Amino acid sequence: MQVDWLIVGAGFTGAVLAERIASQLKQKVLIVEQRDHIGGNAYDYHDEQGVLVHQYGPHIFHTNAKHVWDYLAQFTQWRSYYHHVLGVVDGKSVPIPFNLNSLYSLFPPQYAAKLEQALLSEYGFNVKVPILKIRESAPSEDLKFLADYIYRNVFHSYTLKQWNLTPEELAPSVTARVPIYISRDDRYFQDTYQGLPKNGYTPLFRNMLNHPNIKVLLNTTLSDIEGEIQYKRMIYTGAIDDFFQHIHGELPYRSLHFNFIHTPVEQYQAVGTVNYPNEYHYTRITEFKHLTGQRSFGTSYVEEYPQVYVRGKNIPYYPIPKDEYRLLYKEYEAEAQKLAGKVLFAGRLADYQYYNMDQAIARALSLFDKVICQA
Amino acid sequence: MQVDWLIVGAGFTGAVLAERIASQLKQKVLIVEQRDHIGGNAYDYHDEQGVLVHQYGPHIFHTNAKHVWDYLAQFTQWRSYYHHVLGVVDGKSVPIPFNLNSLYSLFPPQYAAKLEQALLSEYGFNVKVPILKIRESAPSEDLKFLADYIYRNVFHSYTLKQWNLTPEELAPSVTARVPIYISRDDRYFQDTYQGLPKNGYTPLFRNMLNHPNIKVLLNTTLSDIEGEIQYKRMIYTGAIDDFFQHIHGELPYRSLHFNFIHTPVEQYQAVGTVNYPNEYHYTRITEFKHLTGQRSFGTSYVEEYPQVYVRGKNIPYYPIPKDEYRLLYKEYEAEAQKLAGKVLFAGRLADYQYYNMDQAIARALSLFDKVICQA
Ligand SMILES: Cc1cc2nc3c(=O)[nH]c(=O)nc-3n(C[C@H](O)[C@H](O)[C@H](O)COP(=O)(O)OP(=O)(O)OC[C@H]3O[C@@H](n4cnc5c(N)ncnc54)[C@H](O)[C@@H]3O)c2cc1C
Ligand SMILES: Cc1cc2nc3c(=O)[nH]c(=O)nc-3n(C[C@H](O)[C@H](O)[C@H](O)COP(=O)(O)OP(=O)(O)OC[C@H]3O[C@@H](n4cnc5c(N)ncnc54)[C@H](O)[C@@H]3O)c2cc1C
Repeated sequence: MQVDWLIVGAGFTGAVLAERIASQLKQKVLIVEQRDHIGGNAYDYHDEQGVLVHQYGPHIFHTNAKHVWDYLAQFTQWRSYYHHVLGVVDGKSVPIPFNLNSLYSLFPPQYAAKLEQALLSEYGFNVKVPILKIRESAPSEDLKFLADYIYRNVFHSYTLKQWNLTPEELAPSVTARVPIYISRDDRYFQDTYQGLPKNGYTPLFRNMLNHPNIKVLLNTTLSDIEGEIQYKRMIYTGAIDDFFQHIHGELPYRSLHFNFIHTPVEQYQAVGTVNYPNEYHYTRITEFKHLTGQRSFGTSYVEEYPQVYVRGKNIPYYPIPKDEYRLLYKEYEAEAQKLAGKVLFAGRLADYQYYNMDQAIARALSLFDKVICQA
Repeated sequence: MQVDWLIVGAGFTGAVLAERIASQLKQKVLIVEQRDHIGGNAYDYHDEQGVLVHQYGPHIFHTNAKHVWDYLAQFTQWRSYYHHVLGVVDGKSVPIPFNLNSLYSLFPPQYAAKLEQALLSEYGFNVKVPILKIRESAPSEDLKFLADYIYRNVFHSYTLKQWNLTPEELAPSVTARVPIYISRDDRYFQDTYQGLPKNGYTPLFRNMLNHPNIKVLLNTTLSDIEGEIQYKRMIYTGAIDDFFQHIHGELPYRSLHFNFIHTPVEQYQAVGTVNYPNEYHYTRITEFKHLTGQRSFGTSYVEEYPQVYVRGKNIPYYPIPKDEYRLLYKEYEAEAQKLAGKVLFAGRLADYQYYNMDQAIARALSLFDKVICQA
């Protein structure tokens, strides 16, 4: 079989590039995907009770990039949706990220009002202030208490569960980001464009890949077909250290175990996601009907248990954000550069970089425009 | 790409043969399927409201062949299910095939009892008597009336809708089969094994094809990849006249238009299928929740509208059971025989023969045992 492009992986990165190459350049693409489905980690399906669930954890689409939103709109209608997350702290469910409403959910009203006043007069309204910044500068005893309280009861314990590392052990870029949001906006994301594909992610992928120049081989790894397919160039969206047979050592990841539960009640929890920073072994529970808007007899939700990643045993989800691993990645990136004429690397696993979906798509679109079309 | 077998079509015929060849002979198979899914006409999926529906009309599995039932049980659990069909006759819904209960649903009790008595004394209990036989031999005025009544109000009109032919114009083998069932058994089928795959047909197919020796290329016709794949032998499950570019003329088919409807009520009709021999343009309506046992908020059903088949425009569903077309098929069969060492033909479309699923599977299993394994 002869194609112009061999693409490894049918997630957003692979699918967007296949779609662009097939529709814009009119070239032939073969995608090989090791799983038995398209969509990568965004894959969704109806469970045995007919509830639409996300096999690899809840995926909410959010972006400020109009061109990404519009690009996807060719392949799906959108369902408007604002994601809401509550965190259980001292037995109370409070809006996450921590905001002015969270103060009132957690503290006695007068004390909450005092903290609110302190935040407003120190930082103003509608700003996100990193709690580490508050902790360090500690403009008042009250704000120092607040920052410590959130740090201890929300941030530190959640980080330990999620990464099995303390915030101090992670790259500063991660820990620096966690804010108090001085606002009454309870939405988890503030992006201009938010929602879910109206009929789900998998139909969106099916529409993207429904082109006569695109063929997809499922249940197939790159090594399964190496030497058997003739292609001019390759795009690789798998783990970059796998590609180079780990010659420089393994790039570490954090994995997750997902426990799906169906229960014959109309609604299981008040919002899409509830975080459990302190209690239980799971970090969070997501109920899908909130996200998808589906009306159904019962409901399905998923518990997420962070796990050590062991190659060949479970799935690499999150690159571990530590600077030493970034350096290790750089060694692989240098190997990749040597192949640039023949093989392009892109995506969450190939770039060893956590991307939201919109970032993965923006990266793929820009690779197409700047590199592939210029060649 | 090099394989031992190229299989055209991912319906039951192609999937069973792929599974046998991969698992028993350890040979490599590539399936090409023109549709964007596996499963052929047995394909099912969850619609936008999460109700499991059958895209190509309702499929109920029923067989007397234990080996077929047991074979499939490797790939699915079974949901036990007896299909019930009601036919609307003179505004009453009566069990179909026509049986003793149908008499009581339709006629005044005394008259029904009289007809029942006449049937029992003429033919005995628990037998199926073709209505054409009753009509011809007409043992009594009452039975002649009954046979005429059913012929006119159920059989003749349904046949006209379904085939756009009168019963007289069809092959006698078809019309001869329609019975009165002298029994109180309201089930549509009397086979020993009846049911549906517990999680649906598509997961059953996914399990069958989940083997390292099997690869599937969707959205791909045979002609798309001809010359690009190296294979030793081919199994072709598509339309036999397509394969030979219609050199002897086209084999005619009957097609169907399916109109799917979702409605936010618990249940739409009393049983799985309701036939409309006389009224409306559709022949029947099937509500899927009866078949699948799914509990869901609303319900989905499908109306079936028979249509003329036009190649390239709609789908060939039923070979038209007329002797002249059988003869035309024989000319293609002779062409096929010449290729026997290289290409095998099997399935509903390649044999130009209506098969129930169990028959298609039995045919594939026997082709494997008797022809492929002996080669
Ligand atoms: C738990 C979780 C929740 C998330 N939630 C959100 C969210 O709410 N919003 C958001 O924007 N983003 C979210 N994301 C991020 C999102 O999943 C990624 O942005 C997206 O998956 C990136 O797409 P990708 O194509 O780069 O990688 P992937 O989706 O991982 O696709 C890569 C594909 O390549 C295949 N592959 C790898 N190696 C090989 C090989 N050798 N041969 C064949 N195939 C191979 C893999 O099987 C996979 O299907 C979440 C991620 C996780 C883990
Ligand atoms: C409306 C309806 C209701 C039915 N209900 C029942 C029921 O209740 N119970 C029961 O037992 N049976 C039922 N059947 C019969 C059942 O559908 C068949 O037994 C079964 O589909 C036969 O499988 P197959 O593989 O031979 O053919 P198919 O399922 O038709 O598979 C053939 C496949 O080959 C593909 N193909 C054809 N040509 C090419 C080509 N050139 N290139 C690539 N791919 C190609 C087609 O797209 C198709 O997917 C029903 C059939 C219909 C039409």
